[in-house]
Amino acid sequence: MTIKSRAAVAFGPKQPLQIVEVDVEPPKAGEVLVRIVATGVCHTDAFTLSGDDPEGIFPSILGHEGGGIVEAIGEGVTSLAVGDHVIPLYTAECRQCKFCKSGKTNLCQAVRATQGKGLMPDGTTRFSYQGQLIYHYMGCSTFSEYTVLPEISLAKIPQDAPLEKVCLLGCGVTTGIGAVLNTAKVQAGSSVAIFGLGGIGLAAIIGATMAKAARIIAIDINPAKFEIARQLGATDFVNPQDHAKPIQDVIVEMTDGGVDYSLECVGNVKLMRAALECCHKGWGESTIIGVAGAGQEISTRPFQLVTGRVWRGSAFGGVKGRTELPSYVEKAQKGEIPLDTFITHTMALEQINDAFELMHEGKSIRTVVHF
Amino acid sequence: MTIKSRAAVAFGPKQPLQIVEVDVEPPKAGEVLVRIVATGVCHTDAFTLSGDDPEGIFPSILGHEGGGIVEAIGEGVTSLAVGDHVIPLYTAECRQCKFCKSGKTNLCQAVRATQGKGLMPDGTTRFSYQGQLIYHYMGCSTFSEYTVLPEISLAKIPQDAPLEKVCLLGCGVTTGIGAVLNTAKVQAGSSVAIFGLGGIGLAAIIGATMAKAARIIAIDINPAKFEIARQLGATDFVNPQDHAKPIQDVIVEMTDGGVDYSLECVGNVKLMRAALECCHKGWGESTIIGVAGAGQEISTRPFQLVTGRVWRGSAFGGVKGRTELPSYVEKAQKGEIPLDTFITHTMALEQINDAFELMHEGKSIRTVVHF
Repeated sequence: MTIKSRAAVAFGPKQPLQIVEVDVEPPKAGEVLVRIVATGVCHTDAFTLSGDDPEGIFPSILGHEGGGIVEAIGEGVTSLAVGDHVIPLYTAECRQCKFCKSGKTNLCQAVRATQGKGLMPDGTTRFSYQGQLIYHYMGCSTFSEYTVLPEISLAKIPQDAPLEKVCLLGCGVTTGIGAVLNTAKVQAGSSVAIFGLGGIGLAAIIGATMAKAARIIAIDINPAKFEIARQLGATDFVNPQDHAKPIQDVIVEMTDGGVDYSLECVGNVKLMRAALECCHKGWGESTIIGVAGAGQEISTRPFQLVTGRVWRGSAFGGVKGRTELPSYVEKAQKGEIPLDTFITHTMALEQINDAFELMHEGKSIRTVVHF
Repeated sequence: MTIKSRAAVAFGPKQPLQIVEVDVEPPKAGEVLVRIVATGVCHTDAFTLSGDDPEGIFPSILGHEGGGIVEAIGEGVTSLAVGDHVIPLYTAECRQCKFCKSGKTNLCQAVRATQGKGLMPDGTTRFSYQGQLIYHYMGCSTFSEYTVLPEISLAKIPQDAPLEKVCLLGCGVTTGIGAVLNTAKVQAGSSVAIFGLGGIGLAAIIGATMAKAARIIAIDINPAKFEIARQLGATDFVNPQDHAKPIQDVIVEMTDGGVDYSLECVGNVKLMRAALECCHKGWGESTIIGVAGAGQEISTRPFQLVTGRVWRGSAFGGVKGRTELPSYVEKAQKGEIPLDTFITHTMALEQINDAFELMHEGKSIRTVVHF
């Protein structure tokens, strides 16, 4: 039976979201209806809303950093039951495709093609508004109180984990920590440079602390971020605007040759180059986490690689959602991942456009919307 | 005592080498005088002679792929004695610098600064001609019958190894094999794309065969190279000129998503991009071996890395010369590295300009000059 749901709908690029009541169709085979309890607002949502995302489709329901409760299951769903607490996954885990079976990547491709088109795996959408189809977003659409996802796009988590906090593990926090632990594989005693102190960069600092890095260099043009970075474990703080020379040269100097690892957490292709080039000759490895604008390219002299630097990237921190996300929730419950530090604002769905505003102004780390 | 030596001198860029008798000063402390028995002629020599190498200095004695016999040792030299057979190393191994001790790289920096300036570690040169200083090249200058090197730039090899063959292990062959085994760390059963079938590319095929790769795709615009590639173990052959679409798309199609590993063995920045982009999403790794022209840059969309591809580079195949090169010589002696396949031409020093000509015309793999 089709139900009504409050949702913040993106009717078009560059327009404020509109809070309306949409129609949500029941889950089909292999699908699950989830009641979203809380959702974070992430830069990626803003990126798509800006119109710069080549995959952006409108009208759609954005949001991909949520926590919720299973409300109904479709035919054949076996791994989840009504009442289960879940985190939606924009990177599914089918456990059957070539990618899942490879043991080398978390980039399950089972639903990738339809998800990229804003559709469920059967090629249709479950959302509509006044008879007009509304597209899904990143397979999640957590800006709707009720949303439908494939079973393979939901991580089951402990019932006692606070959904209004662990929802942040659905994207940024896990991405930052996972990139350090799974992708960069930072070694104890090493030096790490982290470019950008938004949610992902701060989470990367937590990851570097977990990995027992000896030196964690936090880099941002907004020095207001340095105090939180310090609390999370950063040891050095660099504002590129304080230096006349290229930031990579500054970091190479302060580290006697460069860092062992760097992470780009902004999505700026020039910073990606700086992050690579501040790595130590012979072994420094740079990981790109940020998402760049459409058509933008990274570049460097090949000599940078031939002399031993490595350039890699990370999506969702290399984390396999259904299998590994529960352990992140446990870490958060034990206090090893201080989610409270990230939540600078909470608000109701009706105020969600303010959350975008706070983010654009650099005043929030994460706003969590409570339904 | 200063001695006379026949040498092919590069008096300036774009000029033929001139065979003259130069003066060679005796080895100073920590230095060794070597009589070169044979030397390969490599593309890097041609690159420097072309004037495009920003580090190129003239007049100089080129050549860096040699085999020789210790003729005299300077004060304090302990690891080598007169009569030892050696291969000159353009990448020294001091075993004491931060790089050597890291266990992560072969890029010893002990003599890097002076070597890059065409000088011995004390900042002077041992070569002169009619009173005019002549610079060293890559720390080797194997186009002189007698040359002086730092002790740490010489790999001692078994006396019974044929110097006129194993000289090729001083650069290209070791670079190609080592890049596959040490840098890419190709796994058994995997697929490997090798761009460029010059000496390094063909050696990379040998490396991929040693690593038991299941599929070895050889790529070159000169189909005359395919037969040797096949003999060495390549399984697939692609001439980019046979295809209208970008070569990376061709390879992605023929491998159902891309290769596990690729190696660029040419030095062409566009091919470096193609080599990265023909790698499989989620895990494909591309290694740059070729040396690009001054100021040239590689580029790609960061999405290529964020979706799991890795970009790295290799110098001298990641091989630590003094420690590891002897094992390559042993492999060649056992027939595991078919050096004869690489030696398409041999000639006397007086014909060395012909060796450059053959290389430019793509008619030779390696010419070995016998003194």
